[in-house]
Amino acid sequence: MESATNHDRIWTAALVVIGDEILSGRTQDRNIAQLATWLNVQGIRLVEVHVVPDRTEAIGEAVNRLRARNDYLFTTGGIGPTHDDITVDAIAAALNVAVVEHPDAIAVLERHYATRGGLTDARRRMARVPAGASLIENRVSGAPGIRVGNVFIMAGVPHITAGMLDSLTGTLEGGRPVVSATIGCWVAESEIADLLRATEKAHEGVAIGSYPFFREGRTGANFVVRSPDQALVDRCVAELTKGLEAAGHAVTAGGI
Amino acid sequence: MESATNHDRIWTAALVVIGDEILSGRTQDRNIAQLATWLNVQGIRLVEVHVVPDRTEAIGEAVNRLRARNDYLFTTGGIGPTHDDITVDAIAAALNVAVVEHPDAIAVLERHYATRGGLTDARRRMARVPAGASLIENRVSGAPGIRVGNVFIMAGVPHITAGMLDSLTGTLEGGRPVVSATIGCWVAESEIADLLRATEKAHEGVAIGSYPFFREGRTGANFVVRSPDQALVDRCVAELTKGLEAAGHAVTAGGI
Repeated sequence: MESATNHDRIWTAALVVIGDEILSGRTQDRNIAQLATWLNVQGIRLVEVHVVPDRTEAIGEAVNRLRARNDYLFTTGGIGPTHDDITVDAIAAALNVAVVEHPDAIAVLERHYATRGGLTDARRRMARVPAGASLIENRVSGAPGIRVGNVFIMAGVPHITAGMLDSLTGTLEGGRPVVSATIGCWVAESEIADLLRATEKAHEGVAIGSYPFFREGRTGANFVVRSPDQALVDRCVAELTKGLEAAGHAVTAGGI
Repeated sequence: MESATNHDRIWTAALVVIGDEILSGRTQDRNIAQLATWLNVQGIRLVEVHVVPDRTEAIGEAVNRLRARNDYLFTTGGIGPTHDDITVDAIAAALNVAVVEHPDAIAVLERHYATRGGLTDARRRMARVPAGASLIENRVSGAPGIRVGNVFIMAGVPHITAGMLDSLTGTLEGGRPVVSATIGCWVAESEIADLLRATEKAHEGVAIGSYPFFREGRTGANFVVRSPDQALVDRCVAELTKGLEAAGHAVTAGGI
């Protein structure tokens, strides 16, 4: 239960992952985990993700739905120079604005391609943005990311997106970051389910996640305690540890 | 453009990935790529994915939205014995049916836990299903997956989901699988964007994806040609290869 004070306001973000290559199984997405981790440090919570194909209507539907109900909306994928890169056009259509060339993007691309064969028509496509947009610096390759309203348009290639996130670090308003602590036990989670439930209930404002695994022929589980309140996390972890030890289970701080 | 014959009907699936651990960045999802690959072999196309937190309303909204507009809807995550496993209750609520114990699931769990401390209350939770459901065999651990209508409820742990998919293989109606072929070139995709666009346009029914990479200080790209029609894919790859070679680029079959 969050109070109404501004300090405790929860800032939310959503992500639209754009790309046939994710939905075909060809490419393992890495941007969900990367963005989630980065957002958490900014005090912003990733609360939903949609993965959509390279189709204008699918992109537009997801973007409009998710930007309306979150503080921030990120997209990854589809901003390159080829025919299957339709993200900018799809988002401009969804926002009902024109697509324009951004003069700073032209300048960036001209510099980048000066020694690489020059700014061809195909490359010039990467300077196209929804009207009203500003640029997000791309420290890795040529084409910049794009910000329009609360929509942040990023690359599909994870290390390029990483560079764009790096240049956004500290620029987005957020709340308190969620902190988490993990402990692990060689126990079947089903044996201590009641303890987990009771411990979570006794610490309002924390969430305890239980993540079972099977290794070396044995059953174990890690328990992740999350809250924006570090002291609360610490108290909850201490109590859970005590409970697990009282039930005869050795506890590994930091998880197994 | 697909014709109206039944042979060419496109069967679609969606996936709802359920779990705070994905949205916090703690866990790298592997089920999207795994399910996509498996579905393709069944002749079913994964067309959208939503990732949602462990919250009843978020799960229900995604499930109802996606099951209505796809032939099949899969979920992963949240079917274990602990307090954060709310998938069955959330889906039953979304379908407006009761949650009941499935007698076969009780029998499966009793057998599984006979030598592991017996069927406790927490473990018995894993026999709860939406009314009207049938079970999906779990060849890896105890708790079965669940089918109710066109909704398939699977585990979050990827190798358990793999076992459930294995037991579903060949049981779902699908169409022709999409086949794909990949070729690679040490070229900046922006240099051959026009060729890609023209080649795709000249082969109605194929999609060409362009996936750039940077390796060993050089720029390259792989081009993936996809269609349910193998002959069409072959013709398109041959033509694209010819065009790339004519432009002075060596082509690597199978991709780089």
